This record gives sequence, structure tokens and C-alpha cells, in this order.
Amino acid sequence: MRSGFESTAMPQSILITGGAGYVGSHTAAAIIEKQSDVEIVVVDNLHNAYRADGQKKPEPIRIIEEMTGKEIYFYDLDIRNAKALSRVFENHDIDCVIHFAALKAVGESVDKPLEYYQANISGTCTLFEVMRKYEVYKLVYSSSCTVYGEPEKLPINEGHPTGKGLTSPYGKSKFFCEEIMKDLCTSDKKWMVISLRYFNPVGAHKSGRIGEDPSGIPNNLMPFIAQVAVGRLNELMVFGNDYPTIDGTGVRDYIHVQDLAEGHLKAVKLFQQPGFSGFHAVNLGTGTGYSVLQMVSAFEKASGRKVPYKIVGRRAGDIAANYADVSLSQRLLGWRAIRTLDDMCADTWRWQSNNPNGFKKS
Amino acid sequence: MRSGFESTAMPQSILITGGAGYVGSHTAAAIIEKQSDVEIVVVDNLHNAYRADGQKKPEPIRIIEEMTGKEIYFYDLDIRNAKALSRVFENHDIDCVIHFAALKAVGESVDKPLEYYQANISGTCTLFEVMRKYEVYKLVYSSSCTVYGEPEKLPINEGHPTGKGLTSPYGKSKFFCEEIMKDLCTSDKKWMVISLRYFNPVGAHKSGRIGEDPSGIPNNLMPFIAQVAVGRLNELMVFGNDYPTIDGTGVRDYIHVQDLAEGHLKAVKLFQQPGFSGFHAVNLGTGTGYSVLQMVSAFEKASGRKVPYKIVGRRAGDIAANYADVSLSQRLLGWRAIRTLDDMCADTWRWQSNNPNGFKKS
Repeated sequence: MRSGFESTAMPQSILITGGAGYVGSHTAAAIIEKQSDVEIVVVDNLHNAYRADGQKKPEPIRIIEEMTGKEIYFYDLDIRNAKALSRVFENHDIDCVIHFAALKAVGESVDKPLEYYQANISGTCTLFEVMRKYEVYKLVYSSSCTVYGEPEKLPINEGHPTGKGLTSPYGKSKFFCEEIMKDLCTSDKKWMVISLRYFNPVGAHKSGRIGEDPSGIPNNLMPFIAQVAVGRLNELMVFGNDYPTIDGTGVRDYIHVQDLAEGHLKAVKLFQQPGFSGFHAVNLGTGTGYSVLQMVSAFEKASGRKVPYKIVGRRAGDIAANYADVSLSQRLLGWRAIRTLDDMCADTWRWQSNNPNGFKKS
Repeated sequence: MRSGFESTAMPQSILITGGAGYVGSHTAAAIIEKQSDVEIVVVDNLHNAYRADGQKKPEPIRIIEEMTGKEIYFYDLDIRNAKALSRVFENHDIDCVIHFAALKAVGESVDKPLEYYQANISGTCTLFEVMRKYEVYKLVYSSSCTVYGEPEKLPINEGHPTGKGLTSPYGKSKFFCEEIMKDLCTSDKKWMVISLRYFNPVGAHKSGRIGEDPSGIPNNLMPFIAQVAVGRLNELMVFGNDYPTIDGTGVRDYIHVQDLAEGHLKAVKLFQQPGFSGFHAVNLGTGTGYSVLQMVSAFEKASGRKVPYKIVGRRAGDIAANYADVSLSQRLLGWRAIRTLDDMCADTWRWQSNNPNGFKKS
């Protein structure tokens, strides 16, 4: 099924695993909006995505199709099913894979480690096996700044040690996958892997029609704030205000999901560069950290709503501050985050206020 | 299928994965010889075990049955096949699992990382999933001193950091599996895991009828020496004689496979101890290191044969010296290695000279 496609243009078909999820769906949308000639194929097991009754495709995918007028090929399957996944490679002339499919709740991973290791490691290994079978060796991996553990110094660059003192199975699974991909690239020079280490993705598509839609109480700050602002939750819990930061609350490098999505597109384009090969880890962040209270205040401004909060004790495993050295992403990908904190808040609020219950309309 | 079996006596049925392999088969034999009331169930995919034409069971298993007069239940299956593995748990009232099934050639793992991660990590995760389904929570894991990386001090005890500077996918896979098992034990107090960190297993069953039977050129010193002594290979390659050791050659803690096998039996017995729970890593070694040249000389004495050798360059990833602190194994398992270097050499030689081509008679 391989075509003779080898040029500096875009690949003709990109497989996005977990493409119905938060970052996955925004990446699909960004690629279609910027490169309408590319075929997008999404596989997702709908573990954390909503498909409305009577619909073939999950809501984010259906909405992107509606917005862009372009078809997205969708397969409801688990990447651990090598046979089903192989059929996707039979049906499409996949040029590269952007691999999001994974479980991602840090706290849940402590309670359900086996589920996390099976989804995130066994799943990734099965994907690699199938990719190799169909001679697809280009992969963008959805990694996380979690692999750094507690930062030895800030900002964190990609040379910072990884894997030290990781406290959650989620974080370990991301680290293990990076190690597996490094070993894969060492063993066979055909592999090209770009592991994008996300800092804290927030925000939503400009349209306000797709966005983050966590099930249950959100684990991450921004959807928590948004759900308080919209009245779905009563108050925000702030975990600790005695950190050595500007106001005592934790500082993180929040990045607009639209910037993040465009970073993936830049990574895919890098594969077309002559001589590109091997494993590359690249931070995707803004390089600037904001505290919890700064986020609350920015969100209040953007939404015109009050966000009541309560200071509670520190959460185990949390660190004081974290933000990225973004020079490699600029140098290697020619990419930098351009959206501001106000953009992040305004776009989150547009999504949240238009869709107080997320994708489920009822 | 769970019985009400709860006592300080031995479990009634032990599943041994990879039980047709080197350490696995000796462990099966040791358990039968010491505890004839225990039912032994072996699963093995025969990736690295020989089954003679027309035989239902692989040679090591068939020979143990012949020697002991006791039946061993054997299933030719891959532990990644959850459905097939489940049938074993349906058919037998498994009380605990000794998990050997894995790929184990360090050098090969660098060339075939995906195969190693799939067999060793995905396989182990599938085993855990099936164990949990059948409410079997007792596991003895076949780990390795490789998890320590380069020793910070000698002898190495179990508190030594693990996972640092691991150079092979094999070593990483053992480390990752230990981490997964730790997380499993944290998430659910029902799990009991004893991870036995082997130093360098050598030797063979006293009978000379079962022993180590590597395919191709052996990766490990002892089978290499033995195959030179028996004339199957011309000369031993000694990788480096400029290490800071007694004679410049690498020093390792060699342990008789029979001692090792008995260590597994002790671990299984520990599960019966009231209040025992959680993850425990335990070194299995003698506490004494021997150099390559000391091994050659001991083997020449035991075999009465000359073992010609050639000094060649150091092998990437090799360390100068490694030997175990064995105090925890004595304290926790009530076990220590009792067989001498001469025993190791004499027993290896008996096996090798009786079976110059290993289990394959031709």
C-alpha cells in the first residue's frame, strides 16, 4: 500500500490515534484547516470521547467535518487490536502517525496501574508492530513534561534527565514509551520519532464548538475553573498556597491547544526534511509560567464570572513550578506558541459557555 | 476455580511460565523433588526450548517427568494470548505463579527492542490481567541484577538504585516490569510479588540430563566455556583484560541454577506466611565474585579439558565487577546458595559432555 510519495510537500494521509480526544481532535482540525489536501484517518476506542446516539462518528470528529466540509475517516477500535489496526493500514496509504491514544489521568493511574500500562505501553508497542508491518516509520508521539519528574532547574530543557522520581504509572508509562522509541530508533535507522513533551494544554478551538470535555470532576486546573465559572461545579479547590512561587500557588506553563496542535503539524513537516532521522524529544510550551491564582484572575476577566475557590492542602506528587525552555522547538520545528493567556481563557470560556455539559447536549 | 486453600503448607498448584527454559525447568524439577504434593503447570511458547519430533512436551519437561515419575501439565502457548492463558487458569486451581517467560539475550534486545518489550512487558501485563481475573495474586518474578545498572558500590544490596543508565532493552524491560509490579502492589494490597534478582546462573541438574541449551553462539560465559571444552566451539573470547579486577577480566557472581531453583521454592513458601504482602525485591547470588579466568581454570579442572581462549576488546555495556549482598535473601527467604564453584563446573560439564548438542540428540 506504499505510494512513491517522497517530497517536501505534506504527506497524503495521516493516521491520528486517539483523534477524538482533546489534543487529538484539535490537531485533526488544525491540519485540515492548514493543509486541506491531507487525508485524515482517526482511530479511537471512544474510552474518553462522546458519540451521540445514531451517529457513526464521535462528536468532535463530526463537528470538525461540519466546520471544514472535509471528510475524516474514522475507525472505532482499540490500538491493542493488531488485526483491526492492520485493516486501517490496508485501507489507507498512511504516511505517518500522530499517536495520542492513551489513558491520561495521573490520579486514576495510581489506582489502575495495569490498565494504564496496558493501554499506554502494550498499545503503543502494538501500534509500532503494525506500523513496521506496513513500513510506516514516521511517528509523532504525545509525551508530557511529566517525564522530567521534579525539575532540577527551570526552565526545563530537553537535556534534563527523565524518569527520575516519577510517582505515577501515567508518568512512568510516558517515560517508558520514550525509552522504547529511543531503542527502536537505535535498532533501525528507518524510524523517525518526534516525541512532543507537552506542558499544560488548555483552551479550545476558536469556534467554541470543540474543546476539552473531561468525564467526572476535572483533574486539570483549566476545565475545573471553567466548570466553576459556568456553574457546573461550586468552587475551585486550590491545592496548596505555600509553594515558593509568586503567590504561593503552583506555577505551570499553560499552552493553548491550538498552538499545540500546530506544533504537531510542524513536526509532521519535519519528516519531509532530507536526512531527518532518529528520535527527537521536543518541549511544547510557551516558556512562561502562571500561578493558579493568576489563572483564576485571568479567567474571571475573560468570562466576566466570579470563580470562587478554596485553598486546601498540597496534593501528593505536585511540584511548585514548571515551565519549558522552548528554544529547541523554535530551532527544530520553527514553531512557537503565539496565543496569549487571554486567548486561552477567552477560548476556553467560549467553549464552556456554549457547551456547559461538554459534547453531551442533555 | 479458587479452592479454600489457605494454610502454611505448600500451594497445591503452581503455574510456571517459561517453564521449559533453563531456570524454569530447574525450578520445576526442584519443586517436584522437594515437594512432591504440588501440581506443576508449565506454559511455554517454545521460543527457546526444544521439543523432539512426535513428543507432546518439550525435552526438559519430558525428562523431568521421566526422572521424577510425576506428571507436569504442559501448555504450548504464548502468555500474550489472554484467552489461551485463561483456559489454563480454568483447568487448574492455580495458587501462585512463577513467571520466567521472557526474552533474555542482552545483545539481541538491542537489535530487536520491540520484540523484547512486547514479550517481556506486554506479556507480563497480560499475565497480570489473567491472574487478577482468576484472583491469583501471588507472583514470583524472574528479575535480574541488570536492573542495578553500573554498581555504585559492591556488594550490591536491594536498596541500590535501579533503572539508572540501563543500556539494553532487555535490562530496561526487567526494570519496567519491576516498576509495574510495585505500582500494582500499591494499588491493590491483595498482590504479593517477590522479584528475584538473579546474578549469574550457571550449572545444571545433578543428573546431567537437563541444563542450559542456548541456541546459536552462547551469550553467557559458562555455556561458552562448556561448548569450547566439549569441542563444539574452538576458543573462548574474553572481552577485556584491563578491568580493575584480580586479573583484569570481568568479575561476576555465579550461582548454581539448583540453588537458584531452590530460592524460588523458598519464595513460594513465603507467600504462606501470615501477613506477608506487597512487593519485595531479593538478590539471588552467592555473594562471591569470580573472574573470567578463574572460571576458565575451575572449568578446566572439573572437566579435565583445556579451554583455549583469546583476549579481545571490552564489550559495550559490560561492567568490571558485580556481586550480591545476600543478607536479605537469608533473612527474608531463609535461603542461601550452598553449591561451590566446583559444583557449578562439574555439573555443567556433566550436562555438556553427556549432551554435546544440548537437547537435540542429532
